[in-house]
Formats: sequence, C-alpha cells, structure tokens
Amino acid sequence: MTATELPASLLPESLRATLPGSAYTDPQVFALEQEKIFERMWFCAVRTSELDAPGKFRTVQVGRESVLVTRSREGAVKAFLNICRHRGARLCTEEAGEVKRAFQCPYHAWTYGLDGKLVAAPNLTSMPDVDRTTYGLVNVHVREWLGYVWVCLAEEPPSFEEDVIGAATERLGDPKAVDHYQADELAVGRRIRYDVRANWKLIVENFMECYHCATIHPELTEMLPEFKGGFAAQYYVGHGAEFAEEAQGFTVDGSAGVQRIPGVTEEQDRRYYAITIKPQVFVNLVPDHVIVLRMIPLAADRTVVECDWLFLKDVVDSGADLDRSVELFHRVNVQDFEACERCQPAMDSRAYARGGVLVPSEHHIGAFHDWVTARLSD
Amino acid sequence: MTATELPASLLPESLRATLPGSAYTDPQVFALEQEKIFERMWFCAVRTSELDAPGKFRTVQVGRESVLVTRSREGAVKAFLNICRHRGARLCTEEAGEVKRAFQCPYHAWTYGLDGKLVAAPNLTSMPDVDRTTYGLVNVHVREWLGYVWVCLAEEPPSFEEDVIGAATERLGDPKAVDHYQADELAVGRRIRYDVRANWKLIVENFMECYHCATIHPELTEMLPEFKGGFAAQYYVGHGAEFAEEAQGFTVDGSAGVQRIPGVTEEQDRRYYAITIKPQVFVNLVPDHVIVLRMIPLAADRTVVECDWLFLKDVVDSGADLDRSVELFHRVNVQDFEACERCQPAMDSRAYARGGVLVPSEHHIGAFHDWVTARLSD
Amino acid sequence: MTATELPASLLPESLRATLPGSAYTDPQVFALEQEKIFERMWFCAVRTSELDAPGKFRTVQVGRESVLVTRSREGAVKAFLNICRHRGARLCTEEAGEVKRAFQCPYHAWTYGLDGKLVAAPNLTSMPDVDRTTYGLVNVHVREWLGYVWVCLAEEPPSFEEDVIGAATERLGDPKAVDHYQADELAVGRRIRYDVRANWKLIVENFMECYHCATIHPELTEMLPEFKGGFAAQYYVGHGAEFAEEAQGFTVDGSAGVQRIPGVTEEQDRRYYAITIKPQVFVNLVPDHVIVLRMIPLAADRTVVECDWLFLKDVVDSGADLDRSVELFHRVNVQDFEACERCQPAMDSRAYARGGVLVPSEHHIGAFHDWVTARLSD
Ligand code: FES
Ligand code: FES
Ligand code: FES
Repeated sequence: MTATELPASLLPESLRATLPGSAYTDPQVFALEQEKIFERMWFCAVRTSELDAPGKFRTVQVGRESVLVTRSREGAVKAFLNICRHRGARLCTEEAGEVKRAFQCPYHAWTYGLDGKLVAAPNLTSMPDVDRTTYGLVNVHVREWLGYVWVCLAEEPPSFEEDVIGAATERLGDPKAVDHYQADELAVGRRIRYDVRANWKLIVENFMECYHCATIHPELTEMLPEFKGGFAAQYYVGHGAEFAEEAQGFTVDGSAGVQRIPGVTEEQDRRYYAITIKPQVFVNLVPDHVIVLRMIPLAADRTVVECDWLFLKDVVDSGADLDRSVELFHRVNVQDFEACERCQPAMDSRAYARGGVLVPSEHHIGAFHDWVTARLSD
Repeated sequence: MTATELPASLLPESLRATLPGSAYTDPQVFALEQEKIFERMWFCAVRTSELDAPGKFRTVQVGRESVLVTRSREGAVKAFLNICRHRGARLCTEEAGEVKRAFQCPYHAWTYGLDGKLVAAPNLTSMPDVDRTTYGLVNVHVREWLGYVWVCLAEEPPSFEEDVIGAATERLGDPKAVDHYQADELAVGRRIRYDVRANWKLIVENFMECYHCATIHPELTEMLPEFKGGFAAQYYVGHGAEFAEEAQGFTVDGSAGVQRIPGVTEEQDRRYYAITIKPQVFVNLVPDHVIVLRMIPLAADRTVVECDWLFLKDVVDSGADLDRSVELFHRVNVQDFEACERCQPAMDSRAYARGGVLVPSEHHIGAFHDWVTARLSD
Repeated sequence: MTATELPASLLPESLRATLPGSAYTDPQVFALEQEKIFERMWFCAVRTSELDAPGKFRTVQVGRESVLVTRSREGAVKAFLNICRHRGARLCTEEAGEVKRAFQCPYHAWTYGLDGKLVAAPNLTSMPDVDRTTYGLVNVHVREWLGYVWVCLAEEPPSFEEDVIGAATERLGDPKAVDHYQADELAVGRRIRYDVRANWKLIVENFMECYHCATIHPELTEMLPEFKGGFAAQYYVGHGAEFAEEAQGFTVDGSAGVQRIPGVTEEQDRRYYAITIKPQVFVNLVPDHVIVLRMIPLAADRTVVECDWLFLKDVVDSGADLDRSVELFHRVNVQDFEACERCQPAMDSRAYARGGVLVPSEHHIGAFHDWVTARLSD
C-alpha cells in the first residue's frame, strides 16, 4: 500500500490528497457540476461591448443551456434561454449577430421582442390562450461587472456581491483595488479562444498554483522572478508579484508595454495580480492591461477558454502594437493548457483512483476541492 | 411557473402539450422505439423494381437489424436477417448487388439459396446435425404494396390491411382512392437521400402540420394557396389541397408537369393529397406523380430519409425533363429537415423538459404522440 | 424456435454454441475483460530489442493502463504505470523514445530514476514527507521470454511458467520444442500494425480454427495442403502442418525462404506450428522464421494487432529480401481480420443473441469460451 492509497486523513501532515481521478472523467460527475455549479452560479458570458446596439446578440453555452444575450430598445442587457416556446426550435444558431427589432423563430414565425415578450405569431389573434408573457422567452438573470455580462440560470441567484465581487476583494484584500483598473471601460485588444481537452477543474488547479511555473513558464518567471520559488501570487492576500528589475513592461521580451491605466495606484504599478472567481473566471491585472479568461466547460474532458486582453480604448484605437503584450500570456496559456491536457488521460489510472498529492505550496487548492465537493453534495 | 410547466391537464383548453424533450434525445427511449415500433410494425424497405431479377438484392437497416431483401428463382420477394447462421458474419455488406444463385458467406462458405435454405457448406455431408432448414437464413415477413417491399421483423406481424392500407383509407376516406395513382406501376424518376440530424418524431410532426408552411415553404404555398392558412391537408379526411389557379402543374415554378396518371379521377385532378403511414412512410399524391418518403431512424438524433419521385414508366423512359417537378418537393424537404434539425439540439433544454405546445391547427399531432406513448408502454 | 435458440444443452450432439453476441459488443463485458483478464494476466508488451540501451523506453496500453517499459542503468528491464505520482500527468506521451538518466515530469519537474525512484523535485529537500520510494513510480511486474517483455499489472502475478510457457508446452507436447527456434535471439525483420475493428475474442477464435482456411486463405492452403481439410494445426497436440511438396520455403509463392534457424530439428523442418498464448499472443513457427502477433484490445469493437516477423540476426543484417516471406502471413492476417470485421457488426443481431454454432472442427474454441466465462465470473 502506498501513501496515496491511504485515507486522506492518514497522509503525512504536509501533504493533502487531490480529488480522486474519477472526479475529472466521470460524465455523471460532470452532469452534476453543470447542474449544481454552472447552472446555479453567476457565469461570465459575454463582453458588454459585443452588444453595443439594441438587437445585437450573442449566444453562449452556460451549463447545458444555450443562452441568448442581447440589448433591448431601452439599452438594457437581457438574456434568455435560446429556445422558442412553441415547439422548441433553437432561436439563434449563429454565435453572434444582430436583429432589427425582434427575434423571429424560423419555424412557425413566433416573434419575440428584445425584452423576450411574444409580440406576434401566425393566427395569434385567434389564439387567446397563447399569453404573450407566459409564452415569452424564458428569462435569465443578468448582471454587468468589469465590462462583462454575467448570467445566472438559477431561479434565485446567489449574491453577486458575495460570490463574484467578493472573490476579488478576498484576493486583493481591498474592495476597491480591482476598480482602479477600470476594466469596464477598457477595450478588447485581442481575443483568443482555446479548445482544451481537459476537465475544467484541472484548469482551475493549474491557475491557482505556481509550483509549475519554473518548469513550464520560462517567459513568465523571467518577468516575475519570485514565481521561480513556486508560490503563486494567489497564495497571499493582497500580494502582487513584482516585475523583474530589468523589465520595462509586462511583455514577452520585457520591452515597454503600452499606456498605463490611469487609475492604477503606485502600489499596483509594476506588479501582477491574479484573481480566481469561481467557478469559471480568471482575472489578471498588470498596470497597462487586464487579461480575463472565461471557461466554458463542454464535457468532462473538454473546456473552451476564451481569453480577452483588455487595454485602454485610446491605445486600441490608436492601432498600437499589442503583440508583445499579448504574446506573453498567450504563451502562458498554451503552456498551461498543454500541462492540463497531459493530466487528463491519466486521471483514469488505478494510480490516481484516490487522486494525487498537494505539496505545501499547493495546499490552497484543497480549499477549491472542498468547495466543489460541498457544491455537489448540496 | 410558466404554462408549459403545468401538468398537461391544466393547460388552457386550446393548447396541448407535446412530448417531453427527453423523448427526442434519450437513447433508451430510442432503443425502445426500435424494439416496439420499427421492429414490430410493417416497415417500407425497398422499391420492388430494385429487385427486377432473381438474385438481385438490397440490404436495409430495419430497427437494429440489417435485412437482406432479394428475389427468388421463382420470382418471389424474400427477406432475411443479413447474418450467417454459422458464426455470425454479415452476409452482404454492400447496399445493393446481385448474386447468381446463392448467397455464400465469405468466412467459411456456408451457402444459402435465394429462398434462405442452407444448400452447401464445407464438410456439410459429414455434419448431419446441421439441418438445412433449421440453419437456413432467418426469415423476415414481406408484403408488396404501392410498388414497395414492406418487411416486418415481428414473429406475428400486425394486419397489413389495417396498419398500412388502412392509414391511406382513413386519410383519403375511400379505400380505392390511392389505387387510382397506380403507384406500383410507376417508375422511379428520381431518388434523393437525406441524412437528417433530427429525431424521427420531429420529422413526422413536421409532416403532419402546415402551421409552418407560410413561414418556410414559399414555393409550396404559392402552389397550394390554402396552405398559407396553416391547416394541413391531413387535417381533414379526404381533403386534397387545390392547386393555385395560375399553376399549370405541380412544379417549382407552376409550369406544366408531365403526363397525368390515367387512373387519377377528375376529383383528384389539380389536387395534392398527403398520407402518413406510421411509423415511417409519407405518401404525397399529385396528378402526374407520387412522392414517397421512407424514414430509416438510425439514432435518437439521426434519421436517413429516402425520397422517391414516381412517374409513369413511359414518361421516365422518354427522358422527359423532371427537374421542375422534382425541385418543388426537394425544396420542401430541405426546408422541413432544416427546421427539424433546428429543434433537435434544443430538446435538451430545461425550457422543453415538459415539451412545447400544440396550437389548434396542430392538435392532430397529439394523436400521434398518444400513439407513440401507447406503443412504448405496450 | 430455431436450434440456436435452444439452451446449449439441447443443441444436437455434434454442435456447440458460441458465446452470445453481447459478449462481443457490450462495453461492460469489455471493461470486465480488461479488469479480470488483461490487467491480471501476463501481457506481452514490447520486443526486448526495442530497449537496447539504458533509458530507452516504450509506452504500451495494457488493459486500461498506459505502461512505461524501460531499461535501467544496470541493464534490467523495468515497467511502471506511466503516470506522475504528484498530480497525475502522463509521464511519456510518445510511443517510444530515450531519456538520458531519468524521467522528468513536464508539469512540475518531479524526476524519477530509471528504477522508478523519485530522485528530484522542486523544493524536495524542504518536503521531508515526500518519501522517495513511496512516491516513486508504481511498479509493474516484468518477465522476459521469446525476446519479449511480458508485464503483469496484478499485485500477485499468476505463474508465468504455467500460464505462458505452459501454453507452448501444451500445444507442442514438449517443453523444449519452442526453444529450438531461439526466438529471443532473432531480430525483427518486419513489423506491421493492424487496427482491427473487431472484438479481440473474434480474433482468437479465428486464429484457433482452420474451417475458414479453404475459403479465405488461398496462399496458405497452397503452402499447407492439409489446411484445406479444415482442421487447424492447433487441433492436435504436437502436430505441425506439413509444407506442400513443391514448396521450397514458407513464402507467398513457395519460393525458397532464408537461412534456417540452426536449432530447428529435422522433425520441425518443413512444418508450420501455431501456438495461442491466452489472452493475447499468437506464435507461428516455421523453419526460417517466427511470427509473433500481440493483440492490444482497445474497445469492445477495436483491437490493435502488432505482428513481428523474426529472422536470424545475420539474415536481417545482410539485407536479405524478406518480402516473400513476410507477404504470405501478411495476406493471411488481412484475410483473417477482414473476416473478423465482418462478424463484429452482426453480433448485435437478434439472430446471434444466443450466439452461433461451432461445428466439430471448431469444438476446441468452446474451451476458450469456457475459459473466458470462468475468468469473468472470478
Ligand atoms: S417552434 Fe418556433 S414558432 Fe414554432
Ligand atoms: S460465419 Fe458464415 S460460414 Fe462461418
Ligand atoms: S504532475 Fe508531475 S510533477 Fe506535478
């Protein structure tokens, strides 16, 4: 019998067990996560600026549902289940688009206003029982923060302040620290979508620890020397990793970045902060840009990750060269996702039936595991 | 709670619930349908003329079985399970072909006559226990009607007269009405195969109603103006939809069709009739041709549809231009199947967990749903 | 009711039932076979010569595990589960390769010696609880025989002498008969990998009987005329099938082969012997070469087969033309695997629910079926 076969309680004091391998491969566990995590919590769905006029829309997969996010005549963001109330046709099959003033189902032409109300249908006047509100689109809760639309499929959403904003406060130690980056006013300078063949939890765990940094992130550890030590910025409340002395900016070659975001404080300057907002958002803060990753879990072994690099609007509009800024974290992403994809196929091994071990610099991942376990048994 | 979340019995009087979404996606429901519907009922398998000589054969998927349909020396149509009785090799892997006088298994050369009897095998004479009838091919029941071979996998098939011919009688109100089209003497002018990513029941429902006609079938509603109103020909017993006054024939542009089928009555002329023969056949009758669709359900979310356009033999032999006649219903098919494919992925939505609603002009679909439900609980 | 629907005990005396069709298609049966057969028995994994220096490695799928086979500094063959003990990354993703002196996990750089011991890790010195042996790679048992590495995932492996060597003795009737071919000193003249879309048991059954030889193996039966009669060499203990008089060697056209293996006896000369070593190895012996097939079952309906043609080292080194020798059994392989692939899709048929029949010359396959059944109910 080897150590990892011991009940977790009998592991040596400095080690903790991870989740068992089946938690990363079992389709039933994944279905439960869809239901109890992604369909009940706030889910960061769409960049607000993608909906810059009434009738613009985006569709996005949230848990097992396709959600249609749009902007109403009045300028409010709205979200609905993307399915016609008549006989179930998918309303919008495109990922993004624009309608004039209503969504018309292409099957029998039931027509819904931008607020979701049923406004027209063939023979509707002779069908008084088809109530325009009852048979309107099914509403999904929305909130806006950091320039993103967050949606929640729960009938009674959890507290956005606690679950979402609270995660940033807890990490940075100050409720206002994240506001200095004015993320909601920044523009998307670059977006890259990664199709990762790994369970979403492997991606979270990877983001939370820096024990791997020295091994797989040569560019990042050159930029942030303390990461060579293996402790993630996330390990300490309020801590930001300091740029290398010789680095002029947060770029792949240490060359100067672009214009600094005005609100960023002196204390925040030349530092890198990382925030995990459970269950599916990672926010990275540096003085001149913000990097936001949103995971879209599609299967136990597949997760799409959309990553936005946000800069000052003026910077983006000026056509400034963003390549070296983007390249740094793009490389980090690729390095991380390859590591996750390397773990996924081994999760089924008998050697991982009781999981692996967390070394001291990874212990805070245990809290994530406990949180997942608690959500699923809820 | 919205209306569709009410038990069906509490829906407003003018509305009926459809089947729940899971009926269209659950592999177990589909397996049950294969067993209790497609493997127990008469299944329209092959055009008789495809077997125009002894030894010609076709293989076709019926429920979960591959069936081999052929013609014997004596000229009779025969059907067998397409599997060798020795150690289970698939006898014929081609979709169509011709053998001289027997089917020889390519594994150990067991050889079966066109009547299915085991006629030869290596060392057969020294194996007296291998009875030539007992170890003959497994017979499948056959009937011929409308120029098609219908097969039934049940040990005791249901009444062909009631289930198949009766469906046409019930629809047209007259047992002889369909005979006027002499479908068994017509020739296949065109065959198109559609691979539809939708559950077979969505295709049946689509065929049964015309509430969608005004939205998705511009050519058809121009030809059959009453279809703009949303009521399917199938809604009324014996009713045929009248051609538009300006239309000369049932063609995509209203131009003249080809030679009228002699048996068609004056009452039937310039009219379109549609018949659903459960579980998998649609017959469309117009004065100069007959359009027969046969569904071959392959998975909960996949159905192959083979559509034949049948014309008088002389017309086909003469090389007459059939394109405009074929084009009309080919467009209808494509329009319909796209609508079905648009519904399939949304069947899993929480908004469809209890199904959608049938408006008054769709109420007759409810009878189809009741029939399916009854068959499955049989 | 037909004969095969009878309980096996009521079949005519000269016939035996095969396994039911579901044994070849049910994923749960396959999972059980992985657990109770392939993960508990000796599994022939790798040609020893592929590991001709310390640090050379190969990865191979054994049951549901990826196994890493390598050679230590001391020259001993070693095998491990191919998974890092830290957080489960697959150690080696390539099929074959070479490391200098250790396997370093590419995620957090835990580093394992060629003997599996943990030799280094970031911060290892400050993590005294990470014991270098406890957290070493998980060992897999190894044996060498016939020039192959055999591995066993069981904690307590079964007797290699009985299970593996015993199979050859039982077949050839003499424990030394196989040694005359000096298989461990031969060189791989050719290796061909076949990806077979069939259950592994269909491949075993096919290899065990020769009732199919006359039908599908024209070249082989010309070489071994007695195979036309339908009785496999394996049917009689110690029997080797005699070459055709006009054949000069075991080649596709009967032309002369290459240099005879010195140890082969006069009695063994001009004869073909075949051995099945359950569960996944077939050995074919002819005077101038040895053909070894290893099955790697990947799914109920998919089996990879690696086939090696082994000749004297001098022959291989001399660049002698081996094509005609290889071509004979390569054709046999293709013919056999096509037959197996033809059976696979029909295993689901209702006509095979209780299986097919074994004729007298196939009765010995029944013992294989009994063995499988006993293993699974163990
Ligand atoms: S399904 Fe949308 S209008 Fe009928
Ligand atoms: S499986 Fe057909 S003859 Fe053996
Ligand atoms: S998973 Fe191998 S070192 Fe961490």
